[in-house]
Amino acid sequence: MKRPKATADGPAVDADETAPATPFLKCLMRQIRAQDTYGMWEDKSDADLLADFIITKEQRREIPIIGDPDPDVLWRLQIFYTCVALVIEQRSGLVVSSTMMMSHEGFGRVVLTTGRLVVLSKTLRDVHRFGFDTIGKLAKVGAKLVDDAVAAIEAYPDVARA
Amino acid sequence: MKRPKATADGPAVDADETAPATPFLKCLMRQIRAQDTYGMWEDKSDADLLADFIITKEQRREIPIIGDPDPDVLWRLQIFYTCVALVIEQRSGLVVSSTMMMSHEGFGRVVLTTGRLVVLSKTLRDVHRFGFDTIGKLAKVGAKLVDDAVAAIEAYPDVARA
Repeated sequence: MKRPKATADGPAVDADETAPATPFLKCLMRQIRAQDTYGMWEDKSDADLLADFIITKEQRREIPIIGDPDPDVLWRLQIFYTCVALVIEQRSGLVVSSTMMMSHEGFGRVVLTTGRLVVLSKTLRDVHRFGFDTIGKLAKVGAKLVDDAVAAIEAYPDVARA
Repeated sequence: MKRPKATADGPAVDADETAPATPFLKCLMRQIRAQDTYGMWEDKSDADLLADFIITKEQRREIPIIGDPDPDVLWRLQIFYTCVALVIEQRSGLVVSSTMMMSHEGFGRVVLTTGRLVVLSKTLRDVHRFGFDTIGKLAKVGAKLVDDAVAAIEAYPDVARA
């Protein structure tokens, strides 16, 4: 299923919010560029590459409520949660394991663990519409997941190291 | 990939060890029979149904080292870990979430969690050869996983209920 692209109103991403200023966005860019095996995205700016993560409210309305996720959106979902795991590792100094289960219908679950502690457990649904209103929102949601995970590690330090 | 069947030496399963005497085997039988939607296995004994979980040393040697798991073996794997989760629930009175991730090559991971506690985390490999030497071994491995999980819950009761 194709995601609608930016409308005639202009690009979906504002230039001023595209600078990957936060640790989460920096990590995301690193992950995306790391998969650019053939250098096809070398000329693309960070803003261009992050734009695929953005679905504005208008774009979201155009996407059917039910739909199978395409490989691109599954790839973005994977990158997003890998990135959450990596930033948790940076912040906590502990190794995080990621397990993601996904049906072809876009329904699934992601679990991040460290030691015996579940640092993130999330049911995934409507994955074919995975995206964020703005880059700022993307950074905020990612940072929130990381913060919650780090708080859990601080609350149960012995379990996280078990 | 077809798993070799019982050899000329006799059936792979001894009659005397097939009685599903342990809570784990009882649960396994219930899970298997629950999926018999059309009653095709009504005439089959418990021993017949459990026999698919058994791979003797001789049979294992006949299976190639590398191979893609077929749907049947994935189904048995799913049933096995579902059962581990269910018996942990019976023993602990807590709800257990199961997340299983599997590549088409038979490499993956299973994570069982309750609350914020990881009660089981296992890397899966060579899934196309998933099976046990005997029914007794199957029951023992299952019970061991359950015991370890229950011990973890007892060690970290507040995390399991977080």
